[in-house]
Amino acid sequence: MNINIKELLSKTDVRPYAMSARFGLEKESQRVTLDGALAKTDHPSILGNRSFHPYIQTDFSETQIELITPVGDSIIETLRYLAAVHDVAIRSIGNGEMLWPLSMPPRLPENDRDIKIAKLDKYEDVLYRRYLAREYGKRKQMVSGIHFNFEYGEELMARLYHSQEAYTTLEAFKNVLYMKAARNYLRYRWLITYLFGASPVSEWGYFTDKENRPTEPLRSIRNSSFGYRNREDVKVSYVSLEKYTEDIQTMVENGVLSEEKEFYAPVRLRGGKCMADLPKKGIRYIELRNLDLNPFAPMGIDEDTMQFMHLFMLFLLWTDEKEKADEWVATGELLNEQIALSHPFAQIALQAEGDRVFSEMMEMVTELGIYGQKELLTTYQEQLRMPEMTISGKMWTIIEANSNTELGIVYGKEYQGIAFERPYQLAGFRRMELSTQLFLFDAIQKGLEVEILDENEQFLKLKYQNHVEYVKNANMTSLDTYIVPLIMENKTVTKKVLKEAGFRVPEGDEFTSLEEAERAYLKYENRAFVVKPKSTNYGVGISIFKDGASGKDYIEALSLAFKEDTSILIEEFLVGTEYRFFVLDNEVKAILLRIPANVVGDGVHTVEELVAEKNTHPLRGSNHRAPLELIQLGELERLMLKEQGLMIHSIPAKDQIVYLRENSNISTGGDSIDVTDQFDESYKKLAVDAVAALGAKICGIDLIIPDKTIPANKEIPNYGIIEANFNPAMHMHIYPYSGTGRPLTMDVLKLLYPEVFK
Amino acid sequence: MNINIKELLSKTDVRPYAMSARFGLEKESQRVTLDGALAKTDHPSILGNRSFHPYIQTDFSETQIELITPVGDSIIETLRYLAAVHDVAIRSIGNGEMLWPLSMPPRLPENDRDIKIAKLDKYEDVLYRRYLAREYGKRKQMVSGIHFNFEYGEELMARLYHSQEAYTTLEAFKNVLYMKAARNYLRYRWLITYLFGASPVSEWGYFTDKENRPTEPLRSIRNSSFGYRNREDVKVSYVSLEKYTEDIQTMVENGVLSEEKEFYAPVRLRGGKCMADLPKKGIRYIELRNLDLNPFAPMGIDEDTMQFMHLFMLFLLWTDEKEKADEWVATGELLNEQIALSHPFAQIALQAEGDRVFSEMMEMVTELGIYGQKELLTTYQEQLRMPEMTISGKMWTIIEANSNTELGIVYGKEYQGIAFERPYQLAGFRRMELSTQLFLFDAIQKGLEVEILDENEQFLKLKYQNHVEYVKNANMTSLDTYIVPLIMENKTVTKKVLKEAGFRVPEGDEFTSLEEAERAYLKYENRAFVVKPKSTNYGVGISIFKDGASGKDYIEALSLAFKEDTSILIEEFLVGTEYRFFVLDNEVKAILLRIPANVVGDGVHTVEELVAEKNTHPLRGSNHRAPLELIQLGELERLMLKEQGLMIHSIPAKDQIVYLRENSNISTGGDSIDVTDQFDESYKKLAVDAVAALGAKICGIDLIIPDKTIPANKEIPNYGIIEANFNPAMHMHIYPYSGTGRPLTMDVLKLLYPEVFK
Repeated sequence: MNINIKELLSKTDVRPYAMSARFGLEKESQRVTLDGALAKTDHPSILGNRSFHPYIQTDFSETQIELITPVGDSIIETLRYLAAVHDVAIRSIGNGEMLWPLSMPPRLPENDRDIKIAKLDKYEDVLYRRYLAREYGKRKQMVSGIHFNFEYGEELMARLYHSQEAYTTLEAFKNVLYMKAARNYLRYRWLITYLFGASPVSEWGYFTDKENRPTEPLRSIRNSSFGYRNREDVKVSYVSLEKYTEDIQTMVENGVLSEEKEFYAPVRLRGGKCMADLPKKGIRYIELRNLDLNPFAPMGIDEDTMQFMHLFMLFLLWTDEKEKADEWVATGELLNEQIALSHPFAQIALQAEGDRVFSEMMEMVTELGIYGQKELLTTYQEQLRMPEMTISGKMWTIIEANSNTELGIVYGKEYQGIAFERPYQLAGFRRMELSTQLFLFDAIQKGLEVEILDENEQFLKLKYQNHVEYVKNANMTSLDTYIVPLIMENKTVTKKVLKEAGFRVPEGDEFTSLEEAERAYLKYENRAFVVKPKSTNYGVGISIFKDGASGKDYIEALSLAFKEDTSILIEEFLVGTEYRFFVLDNEVKAILLRIPANVVGDGVHTVEELVAEKNTHPLRGSNHRAPLELIQLGELERLMLKEQGLMIHSIPAKDQIVYLRENSNISTGGDSIDVTDQFDESYKKLAVDAVAALGAKICGIDLIIPDKTIPANKEIPNYGIIEANFNPAMHMHIYPYSGTGRPLTMDVLKLLYPEVFK
Repeated sequence: MNINIKELLSKTDVRPYAMSARFGLEKESQRVTLDGALAKTDHPSILGNRSFHPYIQTDFSETQIELITPVGDSIIETLRYLAAVHDVAIRSIGNGEMLWPLSMPPRLPENDRDIKIAKLDKYEDVLYRRYLAREYGKRKQMVSGIHFNFEYGEELMARLYHSQEAYTTLEAFKNVLYMKAARNYLRYRWLITYLFGASPVSEWGYFTDKENRPTEPLRSIRNSSFGYRNREDVKVSYVSLEKYTEDIQTMVENGVLSEEKEFYAPVRLRGGKCMADLPKKGIRYIELRNLDLNPFAPMGIDEDTMQFMHLFMLFLLWTDEKEKADEWVATGELLNEQIALSHPFAQIALQAEGDRVFSEMMEMVTELGIYGQKELLTTYQEQLRMPEMTISGKMWTIIEANSNTELGIVYGKEYQGIAFERPYQLAGFRRMELSTQLFLFDAIQKGLEVEILDENEQFLKLKYQNHVEYVKNANMTSLDTYIVPLIMENKTVTKKVLKEAGFRVPEGDEFTSLEEAERAYLKYENRAFVVKPKSTNYGVGISIFKDGASGKDYIEALSLAFKEDTSILIEEFLVGTEYRFFVLDNEVKAILLRIPANVVGDGVHTVEELVAEKNTHPLRGSNHRAPLELIQLGELERLMLKEQGLMIHSIPAKDQIVYLRENSNISTGGDSIDVTDQFDESYKKLAVDAVAALGAKICGIDLIIPDKTIPANKEIPNYGIIEANFNPAMHMHIYPYSGTGRPLTMDVLKLLYPEVFK
């Protein structure tokens, strides 16, 4: 049956879906020391358990980390996951090792025994690796690469299918399309090797047989016949899915292959759990296995490559096949070998075919109205005549001037450095809140499946086996009941509940009319008190009177508060130091003291210089992208200085503490000081009991404590509870300005998934 | 020890707290038939269990309902609870009976056996009532009244205490104050009897001894020696708390009283669990037992009486005692008897003393800066010379012209009528949302302790024994976990969760940039689709295109949606009828169809007349104070008429349905139709499974169903889920426009407190 896919793709109700697709990446890397030797350590135990870890595995050797992304609906999404998994892997390895950025392994140990097979739990997995070591040799297995998993969009396939009549089941139709793509991929694969081949030379210890090795440099050892591939007698036809499946199954039956997965073609057709499922269930996606690691991309692959691969996959459907299937594929094999083995700087004989491919792709992009990809195609097309601009070309320029080892070490260290630069962030998800980034880091590290349900809303789905949890803001979970945050959100209700349970809360009244509130003046006239709107949270509309108030000031404060809410609270002002207690599951996990933005004089530098110096602290940043904010020198800060008789050019005396803000918020440059270990058990018990009275599992509760050296006493209350937060920030406890960091996000994770931490 | 309380009260830091106080009411009423005969039925079983009911009990007889309020921090609060408990009691009794509004019982049965002692669970309670029947006679026990429980504010007492030095414990100080108040109350009690006495005549069957009965009318039979009181040999001194306690305990020991509670003085001092506790724990509050039922107040007592009683209690501290304690009290007894036995219209000899009391009260109010009470005092003072304006005076005016029975029947029926007028509301709490009013009704009916933590926020606390539950909006409870409403609040997340679980949701995309959204035009150009802001809920910014859209309209719709939110959704528009499924604990409790505001023609009346007619429906009201809203005839409705070629003066044909709105919201006059029983199990299972996928216990889920006669099928989806609501309205299911009402609030209560419904 013949169908014109080009025509189907061009139909108006198909076109808008042409670019819908799903992507998944698997990326291997060798773990090495900072001087480029194979790591002698085991896979880090902090990375959870390899028996289920969905993202971070080991491939052949104990040193060969394999990073796996979940399936993404877009290239960006997939790359973000890869970036995150990378970040987690590198930071988990620690800063004494790094990931080798090249496909070709680093200098390998002299003795085969020093290449350690991955220490997996399942004995059958170890046995398979032993078989591979015997069959192919350990050294060949040490090569790394990227597997690019590609699925044509569900809607695209459905719409193509509904636009034709030749096939009567969607599965059969999809099989035909995927087989065409597979054959064409093998036919035009040389172009991928040309553009993205990145294994020009080998290190000492890779080729053990002096006779049987190529003349280096070349474009891609890995994609040439010198790379890691099946023996000559492994032959599979791509004529049809049935033939493909049958060939592989026959080879396994005859013992030519030990198992299906030993079939190492550059293209694998995937669907179902095993080969036998394929013809029944149909092809679900295609696995492209021939991408070398790009050392110039921190993650081994960049967005442009992914975009090109996507367009290329669409082109493979778009373009016609010119010869019989097997011959078509065989031609492709020959062309690829020719390109792979050529010198990285050599001009190629296939420029005309290359130009034809690009011009067809350009035509396709135009016809299908695909947005903003022409520039990308032009750039790559130009490389057809500029071999030194291809990846292998760029690599050879560096290797020739320096060495392959140096190339690997320099880039490896750079990428490692990036991962450690901001340990409180997670690459790929830097737009999310820090607490969520840290939580994601922990979840990925321990091997929970994570899904971002809504990035702007910090909404995550976690999964381990059948246990699903939804988490928002890293602290809103199924651990708490619905009513608990509603209690805490309502200051009046919180106070009532705490008071009824016997805790000290500021005495006060709620008012809904100005007149009524005015009449209460006599009660507050001579006391320390606060006027605040009932439900705003960011300090707006709040007036504090530490020593009574005049009638005029009182009424002004009421008006201010009523501007923000229809209900206001007048409360006694509690004197003392405010501490944030982070309570989790009836345990105080962290206590934080927040100090207003400040600098300490040295008798030499000006305030401005001291601020600049303090702002170099690695934890300071802006817009909530770091655990601490940069100290500003704006109007409010200058006013504060003025009140202390200072200007920004004043030179404070040695050890003089200069405050730049009255409020202690971290968001206005305040310091976070972990004081967890400085507190008596009595205060911790008090906080735990108060949170229990509110019924909360996760709560940040703010206590005013005049003197923490005196143990807490519920009866003679030497404390006051001023607020309970249902969405307490966690990052400030994890990365405080001083004191010990407390791994709160990991603690929440442990509570959600005790079974993973057993 | 002598202390000048007047002086203490006048201190500047005491004065602002002078009026702080707590109040509680207990009110008895006889249950009678509509013609004023004692009810023959048992206490209604719908009113939960009398073994623990905190609000609705029976006193001596099975017909004598006792309504009890919780302790309130203000008169208003206490009266609101009384109103609510009243409402619940009257509606639970049903409309075949009513509460007798008079203190004196209605005509009593000839035979003592027909006066049934309350059928209580505890045998000791029954035994005590049998003893009372023997000792005092059943008929005397049938009198009803109000017990006014009064506590001086905690802060007032503390501040008074701290303003003096004579007493060194707060308890001792409070005891002295309460004893003074008690003595002065007994001394000036005649004024209360004069103003509020309301038992001028008895019905047939009350006095059985023809010799020993007063000449009627008088001011208060109940407060005279002909009322229900202890025998002559019961004598208690009010000299000190110790003497008071000792006297009562001695009488119980000597058998003069059967138990402490048989001491029926007009004043009781309360604190601790029993008399023995009193001297140890101190007096907590005072119980005033001499208020007759005021038949002119729907609840037997009105706010003015409460206000006067409050001022009077303060006055009793303020004013000096003039004689020795026991003589002072004895004088009061004599004066009271004189007033109680006098004719309601008679001028009294005590006007001078009355004037002195009022002038002292007025002085107190002025000195303490008590706000807005002078008018009240003046009004009551005037009654000193206008006996016909007192309650007994007003009653006698009516009784003389008609009869006591008629007085009771007329007012009893009126108050019953009020309770049934709007059965979807709860008196006292009409400012709260209807669902919360209904929920409160149910909770009070079943005898759960309820506390309003925040009225504006519909925040309740419920308690049964040690089991506390917090409830907001009658549907936000501890039954759901925190994350569940957050899932439902987020349309994108809801759809993802439902889709991953295999349910049909509208296909669509989320966009955060106009440019990006514009590019998706090709996908929607020819489809039925909706553009909406991601997180607003009230239809604002939503555009519906039932048949594709022009590029211009498309972009306009995008702009509209982006005005409301930074994220917008474009979704396929599902065609069919929308139904609200209310799912509770894995069960569909109600299904509702909402029809846009409409009238049905009769060929005679104009649209305007038909609307006016439809608006007379008892369930229609305005501003969400009724289950259905009045249909408007504003701009939108006229436009809608115009589209159908009609005007408000047009006369629609018989059976012609004229829609006045496009949207089906109940809030714009739509009809709510309960269709729970019209649905196949398959749809109910579908809704239950979808809600389970979201993890919710309480959820209103909206399904689009093209044809409900075809059973639901998850695989060939003949439905679509368009929204899941975490705060679903309940009142519209309980009181639908047509179809069966579904008691959802009671269902929620059952789920929260299964132990109460066992």
